[in-house]
Amino acid sequence: MELSRMTLKEFAKELASDSPAPGGGSVAALCGALGAALSVMVTNLTIGKEKYRDVWDEMGKVQREAKELQTRFLSLMEQDSEAFNTFFAAMKMPKETEEEKTLRTAKMQEGLKEAALVPLETLTACQLLAELAEKTARRGNGNAVTDAGTAALLARAAAMAAAYNVRINLGGIKDEAFVTTTRGEIEGALSRIEKTVSDVERHIESLL
Amino acid sequence: MELSRMTLKEFAKELASDSPAPGGGSVAALCGALGAALSVMVTNLTIGKEKYRDVWDEMGKVQREAKELQTRFLSLMEQDSEAFNTFFAAMKMPKETEEEKTLRTAKMQEGLKEAALVPLETLTACQLLAELAEKTARRGNGNAVTDAGTAALLARAAAMAAAYNVRINLGGIKDEAFVTTTRGEIEGALSRIEKTVSDVERHIESLL
Repeated sequence: MELSRMTLKEFAKELASDSPAPGGGSVAALCGALGAALSVMVTNLTIGKEKYRDVWDEMGKVQREAKELQTRFLSLMEQDSEAFNTFFAAMKMPKETEEEKTLRTAKMQEGLKEAALVPLETLTACQLLAELAEKTARRGNGNAVTDAGTAALLARAAAMAAAYNVRINLGGIKDEAFVTTTRGEIEGALSRIEKTVSDVERHIESLL
Repeated sequence: MELSRMTLKEFAKELASDSPAPGGGSVAALCGALGAALSVMVTNLTIGKEKYRDVWDEMGKVQREAKELQTRFLSLMEQDSEAFNTFFAAMKMPKETEEEKTLRTAKMQEGLKEAALVPLETLTACQLLAELAEKTARRGNGNAVTDAGTAALLARAAAMAAAYNVRINLGGIKDEAFVTTTRGEIEGALSRIEKTVSDVERHIESLL
């Protein structure tokens, strides 16, 4: 069953179960989707309000991007669980003969790469989320500034959780070039997101 | 409709709509519920595994607490939106006569207090979540350490978002004693949560 068709209650129950998927990776993507949805909400509370006429156009653009991002995060939530299940299936392949061992190892390596690439995409998407949250926090409806701030906080938490999921999978990957490149991408994205989210935090602190 | 009976997709859509509730406060509580569910999952992946026999009892206790916490957070998610709607209804009360004005102001003050107290309870619950996440991160199944870490990150994000929601409502409350006490509670809870979550982060960094 698609995760996004579960009710919140069902999803929490499925998450809590003794199956490792869905786990932290899917939750990270879901938090991204919630942050994107909050960003859309702030634009909805801004566009059409006379006081904010100057930013209607900008907020319209933010809204379109945030809507796309919401869809992308919900899809990443599904993909994360699927990638885990694919890896898990590879792990259970027969390993009696040399041929079977080789095939199993190859499939497991493929599975691990996929299980690293999905949360890496979540992490990248969190960077866009943080940027959109900053725009809504600074120029969106002031009554909704804490909602914009919540979106920024979610971008940070989702990014860090996604990074955990990339890194734990990198631990098992033998392709050193892939590991090195990916580690660099993680650090770069995390530091950009942290900078943006800290700026948003300071801005909100100055208002509360 | 109860929020927890919505599918993830429906909830995201409802969140993104131009209605201010559900907003950041409900999302904070939902993130708490997701963190609690992840903590339950880690205990489920620990109890029964021979390697972790020494901590089965402790993880059993964590599991019971995390399950209760999950239910509490899901209920806080509903309460947060209800509190907002109650305040909003008070704001729309008639204000023609002096009597009406007095009644409206009183109801709005009541509504604001409730709208501050619900996220304050979410914030307090995040402290327990952070503590449970620390236990599962340190002594739960090592394969699920990033899930435990994700629960800790969610405790921090949910706590900070809840604090935003308390503080924005405090801004409109005239009862100074209430405001001062509550501000103190926020600071105390946030700093305890930050300490616990930073410890968990360092622990996980040392493993990845």
